[in-house]
Amino acid sequence: MSLLTVGSVAFDALETPFGKTDKIIGGSGTYIALSASYFTKDNNLVAVVGDDFPQATIDDFNQHGINTEGLQVRAGEKTFFWSGKYHNDMNSRDTLETQLNVLEHFDPIIPEAYQNCSYLMLGNSTPSVQKTVIERLRNRPKLIVLDTMNLWISIANDDLMSVLKLVDILVVNDEEARQLTNEYSLVKAAARIQAMGPKTVIIKKGEHGALLFSEGRTFFAPALPLEEVFDPTGAGDTFVGGFIGYLAKTDDASFDNMKRAIIYGSAMASFCVEKFGAERIMNLTADEIKTRVNEFITLSAFGLES
Amino acid sequence: MSLLTVGSVAFDALETPFGKTDKIIGGSGTYIALSASYFTKDNNLVAVVGDDFPQATIDDFNQHGINTEGLQVRAGEKTFFWSGKYHNDMNSRDTLETQLNVLEHFDPIIPEAYQNCSYLMLGNSTPSVQKTVIERLRNRPKLIVLDTMNLWISIANDDLMSVLKLVDILVVNDEEARQLTNEYSLVKAAARIQAMGPKTVIIKKGEHGALLFSEGRTFFAPALPLEEVFDPTGAGDTFVGGFIGYLAKTDDASFDNMKRAIIYGSAMASFCVEKFGAERIMNLTADEIKTRVNEFITLSAFGLES
Repeated sequence: MSLLTVGSVAFDALETPFGKTDKIIGGSGTYIALSASYFTKDNNLVAVVGDDFPQATIDDFNQHGINTEGLQVRAGEKTFFWSGKYHNDMNSRDTLETQLNVLEHFDPIIPEAYQNCSYLMLGNSTPSVQKTVIERLRNRPKLIVLDTMNLWISIANDDLMSVLKLVDILVVNDEEARQLTNEYSLVKAAARIQAMGPKTVIIKKGEHGALLFSEGRTFFAPALPLEEVFDPTGAGDTFVGGFIGYLAKTDDASFDNMKRAIIYGSAMASFCVEKFGAERIMNLTADEIKTRVNEFITLSAFGLES
Repeated sequence: MSLLTVGSVAFDALETPFGKTDKIIGGSGTYIALSASYFTKDNNLVAVVGDDFPQATIDDFNQHGINTEGLQVRAGEKTFFWSGKYHNDMNSRDTLETQLNVLEHFDPIIPEAYQNCSYLMLGNSTPSVQKTVIERLRNRPKLIVLDTMNLWISIANDDLMSVLKLVDILVVNDEEARQLTNEYSLVKAAARIQAMGPKTVIIKKGEHGALLFSEGRTFFAPALPLEEVFDPTGAGDTFVGGFIGYLAKTDDASFDNMKRAIIYGSAMASFCVEKFGAERIMNLTADEIKTRVNEFITLSAFGLES
């Protein structure tokens, strides 16, 4: 089924203990759409870049089957830029520089061809932009998934509360879940979030896996234990992209299928961290994904009968 | 098969955000033996207490099928005492007071009836005491499991390295694994530990579950997401007790059976944190354990075929 992703397409400059990059391609929309491209063919992107954004990358997107009709290229403006430095434990990072550029006045225009999308993935951006997207769709998608971040929880809480009422699934990390609810226990935090609107809550715990709460049920997906995390940038978005891509492909948002979708998302995220930026998820084969998913099965199956 | 546990039997005074206790029963040997008692009937304990230790608790141990012939009661001496206060996140704690008392000169005497034990669990104590126990057993047990802590890694590293060469399984938490190996990645840390002696390494990650590394294979067991952690004291020892108790019961130390044993250990640990100290694991039924283990199956099964 058709997937619409709204998110950022950006330049990142990254520094990790393993090295540093000049401006490379990043952004939530980039990671989500690329990751989803391995699952769904009807893969539509709404985002904005400046005219400094390379056409070659847009061509790459298209080669991955991503429809970029909704990718606005603003003449005379510059692409969103973020630069950050990871600490040695790779679990925390400092922002060195943020240039909003085209994102400052992002108006998410939905091409006619994107109307009637079945699955809507609202990647991390301002809650007001996310709400505008929902309002501009003539028919409500079957499933709306929203990602957000600590910044919006702090400075745009009312807007966030407003858009949360409209979505089916919220995806946040553990710290964001705690910040949003003032609950340390993730079980309690998830229940509080469900009372805000989303019936389903996914809490990403990075190297510690992910939790799914829905319909009074809980599922835990492990993260693959890795020898090395080369660059964690985009791992959360790549996870979400695999998750929503798998749901769109299978057109099944039941609890059992969401569990499978989370395993696919986790597998995609485990690739993402192997190289800088989106390099690894630009270049994956179906066989590699299948092998990696099998590693998750081996990792967590324990052969006890209920 | 027969299990021998060597560890501490102690008094703890605990303070958590939920309340505080006077002196209650604690110690690694207490938690391990009680937890194992739900699985194996041939359950032998070596430890030392002072004559201030209540006979009623020793009776409780016996009622759980724990053989206390090896529990030395030292006249005129006092039982080991530890008091600690947990921070609000329950993941870190401060030691308020430690009184070594009888532990200062603990000589682990092995009763004749304990010779020929098949499974040996060396709970956290000084590496030299742990080594003495191994040397005093005339026949090497089928399986030797060792737990240790940050203190011994710091102040008794040579002794620890010496005893590590003699054991089959090391159980540590994530911070201890990193401290022991200077590796942040737990995959690399486990490989380093395996080079120190133990073929199998179990890394406990508290609320984030546990990892098993053995024979080039990796298994991840989730922790049950809990609404509330009332008191984490003893959860790690209770985990180990369930693990070794299940292995002793089934007399099978294959990788696949160790996976099941870890699930049982995790289930036991999830009970432990529900009340202060050992109260909850003093009072469990087989049905409660079965139900809890089924929750782990529900929590982590995702129905993807390899």
